[in-house]
Amino acid sequence: MSAYSIGLDYGTNSCRSLLIDLDSGKELGSEVFNYPSGKLGILTDPNDPNVARQNPQDYIDGCEKIIRGAIAQAQANDPDFSPSKVISIGVDTTGSTVIPVDAAGNPLAFDPQFADNPNAKVWLWKDHTAFREAEQITKLAQEMRPQYLEKCGGTYSSEWWWSKILRVRKTDPAVFDAAFSFVEHCDWLTAELAGDTNPLTLKRSICAAGHKAMFNDQWGGLPDKEFLSALDPALAELRDRLYEDAHASDQLAGTLCKQWANRLGLDEGVAIAVGAFDCHMGAVGSGVKKGTLVKVLGTSTCDITVADKGIADVPGLCGQVDGSVVPGMIGVEAGQSAVGDLFLWLVNHIVPDSYGADSGAKFAAMGEKISKMKPGESGLLALDWNNGNRSVLTDVRLSGLMLGQSLHTEAHEIYRAYIEATAFGAYTIIKRMEEFGVEINEVVTTGGLSLKNPTLMQIYADVIGKPMKVSVSEQTCALGAALFGAVSAGYGTLAQLQAKVVSYHDRVYYPIAENQVVYSQLFELYSQLHDGFGVTEWRGSMANVMKELMDIREQQRN
Amino acid sequence: MSAYSIGLDYGTNSCRSLLIDLDSGKELGSEVFNYPSGKLGILTDPNDPNVARQNPQDYIDGCEKIIRGAIAQAQANDPDFSPSKVISIGVDTTGSTVIPVDAAGNPLAFDPQFADNPNAKVWLWKDHTAFREAEQITKLAQEMRPQYLEKCGGTYSSEWWWSKILRVRKTDPAVFDAAFSFVEHCDWLTAELAGDTNPLTLKRSICAAGHKAMFNDQWGGLPDKEFLSALDPALAELRDRLYEDAHASDQLAGTLCKQWANRLGLDEGVAIAVGAFDCHMGAVGSGVKKGTLVKVLGTSTCDITVADKGIADVPGLCGQVDGSVVPGMIGVEAGQSAVGDLFLWLVNHIVPDSYGADSGAKFAAMGEKISKMKPGESGLLALDWNNGNRSVLTDVRLSGLMLGQSLHTEAHEIYRAYIEATAFGAYTIIKRMEEFGVEINEVVTTGGLSLKNPTLMQIYADVIGKPMKVSVSEQTCALGAALFGAVSAGYGTLAQLQAKVVSYHDRVYYPIAENQVVYSQLFELYSQLHDGFGVTEWRGSMANVMKELMDIREQQRN
Repeated sequence: MSAYSIGLDYGTNSCRSLLIDLDSGKELGSEVFNYPSGKLGILTDPNDPNVARQNPQDYIDGCEKIIRGAIAQAQANDPDFSPSKVISIGVDTTGSTVIPVDAAGNPLAFDPQFADNPNAKVWLWKDHTAFREAEQITKLAQEMRPQYLEKCGGTYSSEWWWSKILRVRKTDPAVFDAAFSFVEHCDWLTAELAGDTNPLTLKRSICAAGHKAMFNDQWGGLPDKEFLSALDPALAELRDRLYEDAHASDQLAGTLCKQWANRLGLDEGVAIAVGAFDCHMGAVGSGVKKGTLVKVLGTSTCDITVADKGIADVPGLCGQVDGSVVPGMIGVEAGQSAVGDLFLWLVNHIVPDSYGADSGAKFAAMGEKISKMKPGESGLLALDWNNGNRSVLTDVRLSGLMLGQSLHTEAHEIYRAYIEATAFGAYTIIKRMEEFGVEINEVVTTGGLSLKNPTLMQIYADVIGKPMKVSVSEQTCALGAALFGAVSAGYGTLAQLQAKVVSYHDRVYYPIAENQVVYSQLFELYSQLHDGFGVTEWRGSMANVMKELMDIREQQRN
Repeated sequence: MSAYSIGLDYGTNSCRSLLIDLDSGKELGSEVFNYPSGKLGILTDPNDPNVARQNPQDYIDGCEKIIRGAIAQAQANDPDFSPSKVISIGVDTTGSTVIPVDAAGNPLAFDPQFADNPNAKVWLWKDHTAFREAEQITKLAQEMRPQYLEKCGGTYSSEWWWSKILRVRKTDPAVFDAAFSFVEHCDWLTAELAGDTNPLTLKRSICAAGHKAMFNDQWGGLPDKEFLSALDPALAELRDRLYEDAHASDQLAGTLCKQWANRLGLDEGVAIAVGAFDCHMGAVGSGVKKGTLVKVLGTSTCDITVADKGIADVPGLCGQVDGSVVPGMIGVEAGQSAVGDLFLWLVNHIVPDSYGADSGAKFAAMGEKISKMKPGESGLLALDWNNGNRSVLTDVRLSGLMLGQSLHTEAHEIYRAYIEATAFGAYTIIKRMEEFGVEINEVVTTGGLSLKNPTLMQIYADVIGKPMKVSVSEQTCALGAALFGAVSAGYGTLAQLQAKVVSYHDRVYYPIAENQVVYSQLFELYSQLHDGFGVTEWRGSMANVMKELMDIREQQRN
């Protein structure tokens, strides 16, 4: 008798489900739900581009929609399937995506008195309003607790847990005071499905805690009260209403409660694994192992690999946490703040309609044009910092830069320059990892761009100089979540399950030598801009940049 | 009995005429002719954005069209007018716009054997293919004849006479050998109208010769043969087929020949003034005087003022030539390589159709939006170098730069940032002039942008910190040409004629103090980028730039 598992993947603009047969690895159903609130699911502020909030109701509504949708598809696809054979659910979400909750664990956003207050909503990972709080935390940690920073790349980010909570405390005391506690999206959702969101007892994820909340067994869990008190005494008090333990996703968060079982058409008691962040589960769903970097190519990227215990702390990464990805190994995480988002911004705000009537047609027409271009022939060079830089600079107070425009520059050339910029950003991360002893022999990509954009994949291979593989599953995050669900239900080990279900497309992108030569020149110039604009200590000249780009352009056009 | 004069203004994409009553100053007729060849009149090369050539047939066809059109309008507007009362024609053109000609002065472009050879066409001012030749000339002059460089801002430009001729010699010997001589557009056209284009005898303009061909009485006219021979022996031989004298535009180039008189419907013998470059005549048509900088705002700009004899050589300007603008004073010339062109590029290649269906609608919608923006609130900062930098860097091997983009940046914000960049470029020129003792108390603008774009005018006033006036005449170049025509016909002095016809709009743009504060911060950052990317000797850090722009953005939004 077959057993089935459901993975739920909560992204930035939508959530999606994946229902798999745990023995054959077959994907039997998958449903997407686009968050209806705000702009593409994000509550923004026209006066402050740093603001990015979400409506937790979208998570609830989406959950029902995508699980029921996947079940219906599975019933249509597989006569042996029945909902009662679903043994587990796994959940991944973006993060730090922080929800202020009351004593029962209900989001303050559901309280009518806060209906119109954006600070009571969910603080989405890419909310950057807390950049000053992040600087304050980094500074204080440098002085008081330097060890806290060593595990998160040396700089605490505005995208992370404590920055956001401190920001609420400083700018909206009414919301802070009404919040009994704060919960990561991935932890709140598993508790909700298990029928008890009590913030004092719900199972918190080590993946979320370890990377983003400075949780580490070396110093007894969360940052100590002396440190928190120095940030703000209210944070020290809050610590008692947070958590002492955090758990890996091979553990049970709970089992499906009666109410949700009825709502979803599943049996009560289905195993629910402890949640985790999307890319960590995506890495597992893509077969992450030592030497393999998994790159989840979405609106932003997560770059994940695993390394043996005892590797050095790598400066500029997002985190290194024991067991956060694969039990028994150090999860090594980095990321790029904008990749798909950068292309979406370009096509939605900048690209003229001569390329097509909508964004799909524009991407298609530009994709066709850039596929015929040679590296460097546009003369353009960009920095991929429109949403700041996550790795290796960990600085949201950076912005975009485009250089080399003539009076003939076309929008598709700009598009290709942004793709190249993200490739250079990706290579910067890999170089840093390698420099500190993390082994990387190949890159596995997952996410829509991997499949939809072969030119992007070839550019990445040429820039990075390593083979680029593509996961067969288009839902690797949800796939990883489904696998963790099964492990938490006792249905086998992670490695056994991965062997059954993870596979790659036949088309592997290998570096093309003549492109590598040009990209190595362009990468030198990218690095010069990267360090010049991003590294405080840098001193030098920029007068070579435009001229060298022109030299390369002329060489490539002739 | 009234007397009338016609000014002809040959621009980058079109030519236009202006027929004026010399006593009332009334503008009685004006006709435009858009050059039909190439893209907007420019013959380009898809593989080399530096190429910009023109078809001389467009000049001939345009001449007939715009003079006949102006006459017809004058006949309709003024019952006293008759073509026989036209006493003079003045001509201005772009420059250096260089025509290879045969021994009779016929453009090689008209020779069927060169019909398809772009090197035999007219080399338009903004052709930048000769950048290496310009470097070679600058380097040789630094070693052999440093005095040559002192009058042209310290660097010889690829836009100028000798660079283009040397380029022909080096890359297309067949064209060079077939060319008996080379003639500036402004000189060739006056000779053509006078019926004798013999390159050995036609009247050459001091304005063209002095700024662009290194002609100066101090060293006996054109560069000496030893210098030219060091560039290329063929140039030394060519010198004998060029000219020994050059003339101001208060002199006669000749009188209208019978053939052209018939073609135009004018009397034979009408005075034709020596030609000059567009902005010099535009400056005269705008009332240039000591302390008044005239800024001709077109596809690029010319910035012209006059100063007393004996002022210092100002590094980075295009030229300082005795009598090139107003007899008896030093004409001081600078320029910006792309202004209107930059906005046209943006609207034609980048701006999405959500702003409007065509470029006019897009400009209108963006103009409306940017009129409501505060300085600095977009967080964007640009360099205005998409077409290189004419003053004060004199370097075509520079390119565009845009910085500060977020994932919310809109096309109209980019538009405003480019306007601001051109304002910062304009201010950089003014600061340099003032630093070397050239007095500037006010700026008079002329050209379509002055009238069509009040937001641009206010931004310029705020950045420059001086009152900005707008010429009433929309055809100040053609107006200046018409005045010089009349002077050459003996119809009065330039000052007398200027007093009759030059006037300004009532609306003067004065700096707004609170905007000046922000723009002075932004100008500091612009200067940092300007020097960092444009000055070889600059060394420093760029890490402050993005953060300061964000600080200003936040301050201006709140």
